[in-house]
Amino acid sequence: MNKKCELIYEGKAKKIFASDDPKTVIIEFKDDATAFNASKKAQFKGKGELNCMISTRIFEYLDKHNIPTHFIKKIDDISIVAHKVKIIPIEVVLRNIAYGSICKQTTIQPGTKFEIPLIDLYLKNDELNDPMLTTDRILLMNLIKTSEIKIFKDLTLRINDILKNFFLAIDLELVDFKLEFGFNQNGDILLADEFSPDNCRLWDLKAKDVKIKSLDKDRFRNDLGDLLEAYSEINTRINNFIGS
Amino acid sequence: MNKKCELIYEGKAKKIFASDDPKTVIIEFKDDATAFNASKKAQFKGKGELNCMISTRIFEYLDKHNIPTHFIKKIDDISIVAHKVKIIPIEVVLRNIAYGSICKQTTIQPGTKFEIPLIDLYLKNDELNDPMLTTDRILLMNLIKTSEIKIFKDLTLRINDILKNFFLAIDLELVDFKLEFGFNQNGDILLADEFSPDNCRLWDLKAKDVKIKSLDKDRFRNDLGDLLEAYSEINTRINNFIGS
Repeated sequence: MNKKCELIYEGKAKKIFASDDPKTVIIEFKDDATAFNASKKAQFKGKGELNCMISTRIFEYLDKHNIPTHFIKKIDDISIVAHKVKIIPIEVVLRNIAYGSICKQTTIQPGTKFEIPLIDLYLKNDELNDPMLTTDRILLMNLIKTSEIKIFKDLTLRINDILKNFFLAIDLELVDFKLEFGFNQNGDILLADEFSPDNCRLWDLKAKDVKIKSLDKDRFRNDLGDLLEAYSEINTRINNFIGS
Repeated sequence: MNKKCELIYEGKAKKIFASDDPKTVIIEFKDDATAFNASKKAQFKGKGELNCMISTRIFEYLDKHNIPTHFIKKIDDISIVAHKVKIIPIEVVLRNIAYGSICKQTTIQPGTKFEIPLIDLYLKNDELNDPMLTTDRILLMNLIKTSEIKIFKDLTLRINDILKNFFLAIDLELVDFKLEFGFNQNGDILLADEFSPDNCRLWDLKAKDVKIKSLDKDRFRNDLGDLLEAYSEINTRINNFIGS
């Protein structure tokens, strides 16, 4: 069981393999890091392993809080088994604090805290550089129905409530994150993809130096210091909190 | 009366002057043409005059159809008097047919006709390259209230209904257009700015050669032929239809 069969898809940070069960896939976390739509690239030996651990812990935690996810179990250092889903080609970004791209696309100042989290949707399309979507554009492209947009937006808000408190308990501020959703064979919408410091911003509330408070991919994006050290710190705090 | 006083604002294609009446301004149409957020620039001697005539005719026509506009009257070859308004920093783009930027930001194919016109909103901010807005982003930036967004979106749909038929009567297809709105001293929302081939796409339904069907700024954007010839053709058709 859970044998890696043929490669179905290779993304920037993960590989998806068929498994010997047609209802599941095996997801392998790569050491590759990319930023700015892959115009900046590097490899960090051990990142795949760290993200596999972090993502596993977070999906298990969300599962306990009744969030439907594709995650089944971790099977080795860099791989998980997941329910096979049809990915919705929309990246769902939730922001609690304005930072990064939003500050280049609006007049909102970096560090602004949102009373109500801001959810933005982007077309998952590297060739078009993941352009922002509006509901009208989503409907014109027949990407998904209005009722389904509501389902994954509501799930995103619930996930934010759960994880904001989770990270706060380990002295991390959840600034923003990107999610992907997919349909399983019953047509249910499940949280898919991963949840790791590759896809979120986490600020260290214990950091004395504001320059090194980013414990996420901003370390790589903006050359803020050792990426693996940051990811490893997050992994350690999660394990200390949950119990490894 | 209607004397040009000090220059209040100079845009890419127009200058706004104070007039000797504090409730009005004088708008002068320039010969300058810019495209791609002013990365491409040129001058076309006579464009200002043509746009002043075309915009005057269209604002007069909209006024007859009970659309509230800032337009008062044309005072010379390149100038109009208008009610002074506080411009809402949002560009309202309505598309009947997909063409241009929308096809780079979505998977919608050029030439796709929309059953329901698509309205997109952009922040009027050259420095940020006029980024697309969502309702949530508009509210976060405190640009305008939800009820006011509804007012100018409804006005845009009404303007489209009126002008689509107007242009159809002179064998022109109204592909898309950009509008700007402003508040007058009573707080009413008026159509402001201009309506000219600088701000819309008009396709010649009589064109034998599909390459020269664009009678608008695409001639300049995409080097499709003589810009003044196209604007002049539109002006002539409008005058023949309305009576000059």
